[in-house]
Amino acid sequence: MKIAISGKGGVGKTLLAALLARTFAESGYSVLAIDADPDANLAATLGFPEPEKITPISEMKGLIEERTGARPGEAGGFFKLNPKVDDLPERYALRHNGIRLMVMGQLKRGGTGCYCPENTLLHALLSHLLVARDEVVILDMEAGIEHLGRATASAVDKLIVVVEPWRRAVETAVRIDKLAHDIGLHSTAVVGNKIRSQSEKEFIVSSLPGFEFLGFIPYDQALVAADLAGRSLLDASQQITGEVSNIFHALVSPGRGA
Amino acid sequence: MKIAISGKGGVGKTLLAALLARTFAESGYSVLAIDADPDANLAATLGFPEPEKITPISEMKGLIEERTGARPGEAGGFFKLNPKVDDLPERYALRHNGIRLMVMGQLKRGGTGCYCPENTLLHALLSHLLVARDEVVILDMEAGIEHLGRATASAVDKLIVVVEPWRRAVETAVRIDKLAHDIGLHSTAVVGNKIRSQSEKEFIVSSLPGFEFLGFIPYDQALVAADLAGRSLLDASQQITGEVSNIFHALVSPGRGA
Repeated sequence: MKIAISGKGGVGKTLLAALLARTFAESGYSVLAIDADPDANLAATLGFPEPEKITPISEMKGLIEERTGARPGEAGGFFKLNPKVDDLPERYALRHNGIRLMVMGQLKRGGTGCYCPENTLLHALLSHLLVARDEVVILDMEAGIEHLGRATASAVDKLIVVVEPWRRAVETAVRIDKLAHDIGLHSTAVVGNKIRSQSEKEFIVSSLPGFEFLGFIPYDQALVAADLAGRSLLDASQQITGEVSNIFHALVSPGRGA
Repeated sequence: MKIAISGKGGVGKTLLAALLARTFAESGYSVLAIDADPDANLAATLGFPEPEKITPISEMKGLIEERTGARPGEAGGFFKLNPKVDDLPERYALRHNGIRLMVMGQLKRGGTGCYCPENTLLHALLSHLLVARDEVVILDMEAGIEHLGRATASAVDKLIVVVEPWRRAVETAVRIDKLAHDIGLHSTAVVGNKIRSQSEKEFIVSSLPGFEFLGFIPYDQALVAADLAGRSLLDASQQITGEVSNIFHALVSPGRGA
């Protein structure tokens, strides 16, 4: 099963990715988590030791040159459009508490150099991870999903769009759903997050007519307190872990009703 | 004066950019606002009519081909590294309530094509807007600032990093400050946002030792209510506009004390 998690910045994608990864792992699934959002830190949220010392794939210059034939950041050269990546998961995935993790790092853009070689390697690797793996893959990604590409998108079983009760977050969800359709990804579902009241839940439901809803995660001050105190977020709120458990069951047994 | 606003997704960059733009305009400054965050919508927040119909520069394929000599999305061709952009602000900036606005659109990455031509045009335009303009320029941007480049960064008078009381937002602020130093931008300052209590403010201050603080914007349920009801955010909270006014004064008269 392949699950991609997207949504506007700050809505809580990474926490949902981490909680789902742990729930799948505790239920006996083999889980590969992929951090593809350079503004996130899935390793830290999953409790990996020394997450700041993990070198993302995009920073492995020697590897990028070896696989693409081009030195990162140099403009105008030739490079391989289909670099070999199938051995990279076994060589570069990290493991902690039964969860395997790959950190993709920043897709480079603009500036003075041409970063097509490393972007091509990242794209090939992401496609390989989604298309070729037989474990549960949980992908924490940005609001921009168009770089998934049509072939890769068809491997995703569910694109979860996280929203919070805020107009721009809902608008981003609509935009993501449209992008998803454009690349052939038709299984979008919404998770509402940071819900403080029934009226906030109703705002989300009424703003997204026709969408499937997987669940609604409450706002819980206990989570904020744990964060500010530097404690793990994974066990900070029973309300939240309970609702993520419901979302897990809705994903693996969609017929049973949410 | 050139002000760039960055920070983790969802912390409130766009609202601060819009409120600062209006405050400068109401104080008699000529203001150019630049939306350089594809996940934001500065036009909508500033009240521009029909913001969804604005074509961002990155979507103007004919313009990109005319200026760079390359068709967007085609891999491997040659293109101009210094495209002409100096006439674009007058031709493509929009005006509403005394504020001029340019929408940059998405810097493309990954996928199958090489988007270096349009990224190069966007980068040249952003550099031109920051370096050559004599008005107040307010740039709403992503957490990734490294594509500013060294020459452009030196034109920025103040890089405002918005944080909310949340560990990852503070970590992103530290990362942005480091990136800023790497490209020669040494005038970083922090604005705390969505502050619910004195202890949340203290968390931010103690987590960012040595940083300059321009102000702390309170969390105000009135803002959420205005958003869900579809009203403008610019006048939703007197508390918030008052604090942004203080930030404006700290920017234009830094000696007077915040």
